[in-house]
Amino acid sequence: MSNTAGKVIKCKAAVAWEAGKPLVIEEVEVAPPQKHEVRLKILFTALCHTDVYFWEAKGQNPLFPRILGHEAGGIVESVGEGVTELKPGDHVLPVFTGECKECAHCKSEESNMCDLLRINTDRGTMLNDGKSRFSKDGKPIYHFVGTSTFSEYTVSHVGSVAKINPAAPLDKVCVLSCGICTGFGATVNVAKPKKGSSVAIFGLGAVGLAAAEGARVSGAARIIGVDLNSNRFEEAKKFGVNEFVNPKDHNKPVQEVIAEMTNGGVDRSVECTGSIQAMISAFECVHDGWGVAVLVGVPNKDDTFKTHPVNFLNERTLKGTFYGNYKPRTDLPGVVEKYMNKELEVDKFITHSVSFSEINKAFEYMKAGQGIRCVIRMEH
Amino acid sequence: MSNTAGKVIKCKAAVAWEAGKPLVIEEVEVAPPQKHEVRLKILFTALCHTDVYFWEAKGQNPLFPRILGHEAGGIVESVGEGVTELKPGDHVLPVFTGECKECAHCKSEESNMCDLLRINTDRGTMLNDGKSRFSKDGKPIYHFVGTSTFSEYTVSHVGSVAKINPAAPLDKVCVLSCGICTGFGATVNVAKPKKGSSVAIFGLGAVGLAAAEGARVSGAARIIGVDLNSNRFEEAKKFGVNEFVNPKDHNKPVQEVIAEMTNGGVDRSVECTGSIQAMISAFECVHDGWGVAVLVGVPNKDDTFKTHPVNFLNERTLKGTFYGNYKPRTDLPGVVEKYMNKELEVDKFITHSVSFSEINKAFEYMKAGQGIRCVIRMEH
Repeated sequence: MSNTAGKVIKCKAAVAWEAGKPLVIEEVEVAPPQKHEVRLKILFTALCHTDVYFWEAKGQNPLFPRILGHEAGGIVESVGEGVTELKPGDHVLPVFTGECKECAHCKSEESNMCDLLRINTDRGTMLNDGKSRFSKDGKPIYHFVGTSTFSEYTVSHVGSVAKINPAAPLDKVCVLSCGICTGFGATVNVAKPKKGSSVAIFGLGAVGLAAAEGARVSGAARIIGVDLNSNRFEEAKKFGVNEFVNPKDHNKPVQEVIAEMTNGGVDRSVECTGSIQAMISAFECVHDGWGVAVLVGVPNKDDTFKTHPVNFLNERTLKGTFYGNYKPRTDLPGVVEKYMNKELEVDKFITHSVSFSEINKAFEYMKAGQGIRCVIRMEH
Repeated sequence: MSNTAGKVIKCKAAVAWEAGKPLVIEEVEVAPPQKHEVRLKILFTALCHTDVYFWEAKGQNPLFPRILGHEAGGIVESVGEGVTELKPGDHVLPVFTGECKECAHCKSEESNMCDLLRINTDRGTMLNDGKSRFSKDGKPIYHFVGTSTFSEYTVSHVGSVAKINPAAPLDKVCVLSCGICTGFGATVNVAKPKKGSSVAIFGLGAVGLAAAEGARVSGAARIIGVDLNSNRFEEAKKFGVNEFVNPKDHNKPVQEVIAEMTNGGVDRSVECTGSIQAMISAFECVHDGWGVAVLVGVPNKDDTFKTHPVNFLNERTLKGTFYGNYKPRTDLPGVVEKYMNKELEVDKFITHSVSFSEINKAFEYMKAGQGIRCVIRMEH
């Protein structure tokens, strides 16, 4: 038992006080974990687009002050009542969506959309008492997706925390708790390309590159990267992408370009941009008879997916996925093992690293489209 | 070798001389089979909606005079050059779509959409020479989907003919060459419901009832029939349908009605009407996390499938199928065996039977929506 168990911990956290303004490193108080909660010491956290999206708060109800952050690695500091699966000292990845292991989704072999702990971006408090564990000067600071990893210590529901191999370097595997698994799982768990097949990846950001990595690991022969920004093509080669299409370079729909390149269409496609036009193209570019398209990118609220139904009747399949269909607690340890045995390459996703005090630099890199992932070192 | 081999056969055929006019039983001449063709003696043929659709010729370029018919059972009379898979006397089902066994689709484990012999409703002649094998008074009569089974003798490409167990009663298994396999295969090969699961079937015609039969054989616990005609519900009980929804009885979308009945949605749905609204409902009524919807019904040319992309991202799958994903030559013999071992019930689909001379009665039954399948006895 740590000597902080059961006590309030004072530590540093990067607080988002208002939309779009630089985070401020503050001393905050982190209350002990309650029933089915654990308190984690965060060692490394990375910045994901979703953090930036909720920090900018352009597309949703703003909820401030808030501690953002959801891609991270840490160590259990103490556990609350009823927690038996984790103990202090365990190495863990907190995850933005959880796994209660008891609902219909958790009991289904196919779904990872837990009824109890499915991502909820509107909720800024803990499930047990509807309150925050973070405060400053007695005033609460809101949580973010049950993780709030831009803090030296945070509190999560035990169902949102995956226990991993303690030998795994947390400064690397921290990026597996969101974007990399989302893209990698979309390919290996959902699209499931066969060895020697062709795969089109729409969008070559972190998620798309992870989807390409999944195609590489699956032995796909042709991995066609599609992006409106040709500057991304050189970097994408490291992730197995071996052909490139910039839709801007063609005066016909990109699905037609791809069909011509591949004698009728690719075997699989994975859409990682969230653009509705890209979703339609990703579906229509797969081969009739056997093609499978997988949607990953999150669309706008008022988008409509449209296609001619004959595209389905000609034996094409369209599926969507959430977090690469991984169940956080059940499956994440295995993904970490894939990294440990060098099947899945993670290091190449990490292009920047900053100290916690420089966290706003990570936001600047992302806004400028520089690099893939920036890891923030908490350096206790 | 039959003593008619190599010779023109004179026999009776029901000729559609013009759109929508009763068929006329005529004496026609049937030329010998050419390269990769076989000539079949048809014993039983059934009437399918597709025959009626092309007879009415409202939605396509009319092609007359023509010998319609594509659900049938018969015996090989003689074979053309290069045919090694079939010999005179073999019991067979001619099929409206073929399997060359050499193209990318035939070599794929997943597709049955043969490049060479995929259904072609516009072509009224044989592939080998672009001519018809039927004539009357020296003038050609067009073929229909490579089968033209409304004739005592017909000629088909060998790739469009499935050899089956000679012990199977052709007056029953003849209906497996189109609609029954289309619906049954959509469920057992594509939707693949698990034992104890829930399945919604949209449209309770022959194809929909066959889809329900597939759900029954798969052990589905709840089989929800959806049809605008409540008169169909009683008959549907024989096919395992145990709950009914008539969208007209509700003032909200049927997908919402089904979601309420099933705590969030059915596990699987199969759409057998071709109505674009039913397609959208069939997709949106499946459960998030694991639901799979399968489209079977053929839409109008200018229909557009529309849905919010989040319906996919919440881990729903939409697939289409053609002929139940069965490869005609490879898979049909096994379906006949399912009938022989009493796993698949076929007799209950056959509600009427007429002699060849009464073939126009079969059209009347279908236009009046009476019964499911009418078998026409050629009675040589």
